[in-house]
Amino acid sequence: MEINPAAQNGEINPMTNCEQKNQKHKETSVFGKLEKHLEQAMAYQTALILIEWDNETLAPEQAGPYTARVQGTLSAAYQSVMTSSEVQKLLRQCEAESLSEQECAIVREAKEEMERLACIPPEEYRAYQELVSESTRIWAKAREDDDFDAFAPTLEKIISYQKKFASYRAKEGQKLYDVMLDSYEKGFDMEKLNEFFGKLKEELVPFLKKVMDSGVEIRDEFLTGAYPEEKQQELAHFLAEYVGFDFTKGVMAVSAHPFTTSLHNHDVRITTHYSDHVDSSLFSVIHEAGHGIYEMGVEDCLTQTLIGQGASMGMHESQSRFMENIVGRNGAFWVPVYQKLQEMFPDQLGDISREQFVEAVNKVQPGLIRTEADELCYSLHVLVRYELEKKLIEEDLDVKELPKLWADYYEKYLGVRPATDAQGVLQDIHWAQGSFGYFPSYALGSAFAAQMYAWMREHMDFEGLLRSGDIQAIVKVLGEHIHKYGKLKESRELLKAMTGEDFDPDYYIRYLKEKYGTLYHV
Amino acid sequence: MEINPAAQNGEINPMTNCEQKNQKHKETSVFGKLEKHLEQAMAYQTALILIEWDNETLAPEQAGPYTARVQGTLSAAYQSVMTSSEVQKLLRQCEAESLSEQECAIVREAKEEMERLACIPPEEYRAYQELVSESTRIWAKAREDDDFDAFAPTLEKIISYQKKFASYRAKEGQKLYDVMLDSYEKGFDMEKLNEFFGKLKEELVPFLKKVMDSGVEIRDEFLTGAYPEEKQQELAHFLAEYVGFDFTKGVMAVSAHPFTTSLHNHDVRITTHYSDHVDSSLFSVIHEAGHGIYEMGVEDCLTQTLIGQGASMGMHESQSRFMENIVGRNGAFWVPVYQKLQEMFPDQLGDISREQFVEAVNKVQPGLIRTEADELCYSLHVLVRYELEKKLIEEDLDVKELPKLWADYYEKYLGVRPATDAQGVLQDIHWAQGSFGYFPSYALGSAFAAQMYAWMREHMDFEGLLRSGDIQAIVKVLGEHIHKYGKLKESRELLKAMTGEDFDPDYYIRYLKEKYGTLYHV
Repeated sequence: MEINPAAQNGEINPMTNCEQKNQKHKETSVFGKLEKHLEQAMAYQTALILIEWDNETLAPEQAGPYTARVQGTLSAAYQSVMTSSEVQKLLRQCEAESLSEQECAIVREAKEEMERLACIPPEEYRAYQELVSESTRIWAKAREDDDFDAFAPTLEKIISYQKKFASYRAKEGQKLYDVMLDSYEKGFDMEKLNEFFGKLKEELVPFLKKVMDSGVEIRDEFLTGAYPEEKQQELAHFLAEYVGFDFTKGVMAVSAHPFTTSLHNHDVRITTHYSDHVDSSLFSVIHEAGHGIYEMGVEDCLTQTLIGQGASMGMHESQSRFMENIVGRNGAFWVPVYQKLQEMFPDQLGDISREQFVEAVNKVQPGLIRTEADELCYSLHVLVRYELEKKLIEEDLDVKELPKLWADYYEKYLGVRPATDAQGVLQDIHWAQGSFGYFPSYALGSAFAAQMYAWMREHMDFEGLLRSGDIQAIVKVLGEHIHKYGKLKESRELLKAMTGEDFDPDYYIRYLKEKYGTLYHV
Repeated sequence: MEINPAAQNGEINPMTNCEQKNQKHKETSVFGKLEKHLEQAMAYQTALILIEWDNETLAPEQAGPYTARVQGTLSAAYQSVMTSSEVQKLLRQCEAESLSEQECAIVREAKEEMERLACIPPEEYRAYQELVSESTRIWAKAREDDDFDAFAPTLEKIISYQKKFASYRAKEGQKLYDVMLDSYEKGFDMEKLNEFFGKLKEELVPFLKKVMDSGVEIRDEFLTGAYPEEKQQELAHFLAEYVGFDFTKGVMAVSAHPFTTSLHNHDVRITTHYSDHVDSSLFSVIHEAGHGIYEMGVEDCLTQTLIGQGASMGMHESQSRFMENIVGRNGAFWVPVYQKLQEMFPDQLGDISREQFVEAVNKVQPGLIRTEADELCYSLHVLVRYELEKKLIEEDLDVKELPKLWADYYEKYLGVRPATDAQGVLQDIHWAQGSFGYFPSYALGSAFAAQMYAWMREHMDFEGLLRSGDIQAIVKVLGEHIHKYGKLKESRELLKAMTGEDFDPDYYIRYLKEKYGTLYHV
C-alpha cells in the first residue's frame, strides 16, 4: 500500500487537512467500495455507543436483560461486517492501491480491527458482549451493596474471556497482558511500562512521603458541605463551556462514574456526578470536558470513519488531565473565574480568598478513590491497578484475593487502606466493562500532558492566557497539534511532532516535583 | 399456513398466553431460521427507535445531519434484512408449515412488512429516511419561528415520497390515501371513515353549537398561572405512577410534542411538556401513560418480535384516551387525588373545590390546538386533518394553500381561526414524520374507548373503583382483554372479543352527548 504523493500534496486542503473528495471516484474505487462496508459497521457501532450511554444515564431498571439482546445482535452484526470475506478481500486489494494518507490510515485501522475480530468466533463474541452489558449492572449493584462476592463470578468470567481473546491475537511468544496493553497504547508494553512505573514509584513514593511529613497544613474543609446540587449543576455547565465544551455539539448528564462518549464530532456527551464535595464534580467536569473538546476537534472529514476518534487512550487522557490539572488546578485559571464561584456559594466561599481556594484544590491527601485523587497521588492509584492487572492476567491471581491485595498495595504506595470494597476494588467500572490494559493510559496521559505543557510554556504566555480568560488560545494550539488529526497519526508521533521530542517521562516527574515542592516547601 | 391445533391447545400456557418453546426445535425449524433474521431486523429497529427518542429529548442542536447518516444506514440495513431473498424464501416455506397462533401472527406481520418494503427501491427508502430525520428538525424550527414557508418545501418532498410509496403498494384500483389508512388501521378505508366522520360532523358540530350557546359559564382561570415547573414535574410523575405506569420499566422526559415510544415491554418511554396551563401537562401525562401501560402490558413472549407492540394505532389511541378522558377527566378519579393537588398548589387550588376543578378540566372551549382540545371538540380537530389529508393525497392540493384551508376548516367546524401558522398547520409533528393516514386513528381510538367503557360499566362498578383509588382493577381488565395480546389479534377482533359487539360509533356519540349534555344542561 503506497501513500499517493499527489494526495499528500495537492489534494489535501491545506486549510483543513481534509482531502477533496471526488464523489465519482469514491464510489467506484476499491477504497470507495470498502468505505460503504465500513460505513455500515460504524452505524452499528454508533447505535451501540448510544445504547451504552442510555444504559448509564437513563434506561429504566428492568430494561437490562432485554436491551442486552439488542446489543448482542448489533455487536454480532458489527463483527460480521468487519470480518466478512468481502471486506477482507477489499482490504487485501487496497494493499496494491495508491491511497491518500487518510485512506491509508483508515485501511490500517480497518485491518487491525478485522484481525482483532476475525480471530474471535462470532458466537463467543456475542456471548461476551451480552456478558459485559450485564456485568456493568451487576458491578453497579455490588458497589452499592459493598459486596465484592456478588461481582466476583462475573469478573472471573470477563477475565477468562479477555485472556482467551488476547490469546487469539497474540503473536508468537507475546504475553497476554502485552496484547491487551497494545490495544490501548501502541508501543507501551510491560517492558516499557515497568520502566515508566518503576521511575514513578522510585521518585514519587518517597516524594509523597516528604510532602506528607512537611508539616504544611492546607485548609480545605470549606470544599465540603451543603453545596446544593442545582447550583453545582449550573457551575458544571458554566465551567464546561468556559473551557471550550460547545453545548450545540454536546450534552451533559449524570451517571455513577463520569465518562465521555461521542456519536461523532457533532454529538459529544459527558457525564458527571454530584456529591457534597464541590471540587469532586467541578474537576470531573473539567476533565470530561477535556475529553469532549478533543472529540469535537476531530476534523469533519475524519468523523464517522474508523479514524474519527482520539489517537489513543493515553492521548485522550492527556487532553482530559491537561484540562483538569494543568489548566483547571492552575492558580492563574481562577483569576477571572473565582469571583463567580464566590457569588454562587457566598455562605461557603465568601470568606475564602482565591489563594486559599487554589491551595485547597491542590491539597495533597492520599485517599482511596482514584477519580478524586489529587494530582500527585494520582499515578500511584494507577500503579496499584497496573500491578494487579499484571497479576490477574500473567500470574492467574484468583479474583477472590483481589480485595485484600488491593488494600495491601494501597497501604504500601499511598499509606491508606480501604475499609470497604466499595471504597476499594469495586470503585472503577473498567474491569466490569472488560477494559484490561486501559488503566496505564491514565498515567501515560498525565505524562504526555506534562511534556506538552513544558513545550507550550516555552512558546506562549500560558499563565497569562489563563489570567485573561483566553482558554480558547490554548485549546486552539492543542486542536492544531493533536485534536484535528483524530487517529490519522499515532500518539507518540503526534507528541513528537508537537514538542520536537520523543516521549520523556521526566517532564512529568519534574512538573510534579516543582509544583508540589513549591506548595509544600520541600 | 396452518395453525397447529396442538399449539393452540396443549402448548399454550393458559396462564400467560405464551407458548412453551422447545429451544432445539426453535433453532432448526423453518420458523426458527426466520426468527433469527427477524431478530436482527428488530435490533436495527430498536436502535432507530432509541436514536429517534434521543433526537427528540436530548441530542445537541448540531448533531442532526451527522446522526441522520447513521439512521439512513440502519434503515437500509433493516430493509435489507426484511426483504432479503433468504427471508422471502423462509416466508414462503412457512406457508407449508404447521405453526402456532403466535408464529402465524409473526409470519403474517413479517410478510406484510416485507411486501411493504420490497416494493421500495433501497436507495429511495434510505433517502426518504434521511429526509424524515431532517424534516422533524426543520419543522420544529419553522414552528418556533412561525414560518410555514420554511417547512413547505420539505413537506412537499415528504408527500411526494408518501404518494410514490403508496403507489408501489396499491392494489389494482386502490386509492393512495386508502393505502396509507390501511397501514394504521385495517378495515377503515375512506368509505368507512367518510361514514364515521360524516356521523360525527352531523351530530357533534350542531351539538357543540348548542353547548356553546347554553349560557353555562364554567370557571377555569385557576388552571393557568404560576404553576412551578418542578412541582408540575412531581405531579406528572405521581399521576403517571398512580394510573399504572411502572417507572422500573419506563422513563419520562421532556419534548416539544409529547409522545410514547418503547424499546420493548421493559423499556417504555413517555414525554411531556410544561406550560403555565397545569391541565395541559397533567392530562398529556395521563394520556401518554395510557399508551405506556399498553406497551408494558404486552406479554414477554411477544415483546421484541414483530407482534410485540399495540394492535393498531387506533387501539393504542383508545388506551391513551381511555386513560386521559374516561378515567382522568372522570369526577370519581379525583376523589382520592384532589387533596394532594391542593396541597401541592395551595395558592392556586386551595380555595377551589373538587367539583369546580372537575368542571374546569371538562370545560368545552373550542380552541386551536388539538393536543389541548377538550374531549368534545377533539374529534373535530381530527376531522380537519382528515379532510386536508384527503385533499393533499387524492386531490393534489398545493401545500402552499394548506395554511389558509386549515384556518377555513377550523372556522367552519370549531368556530375559531388561527392567527399564526404555529397555532395552525404547524402544530403537529406527524406530517413532518411522514405519518399520513395516522390522524383518523385518534378519533377512532376515542370511539373504541367509549365502546369499552360502556361494556365495563355493565360489568364492574367503574366509578366506584375510581373513587376508591383502585385503578389497577381497571388496568387489569384492559390488560386481560387488550394489552397482553400485542399484535397477536387485530383491533376490531379484540374490541369484539371484549365487548361482544363489532365496532359501533354510536357509543362514542352517546357518551359525549350524555356527559356534556349533563354538564351544560342541553
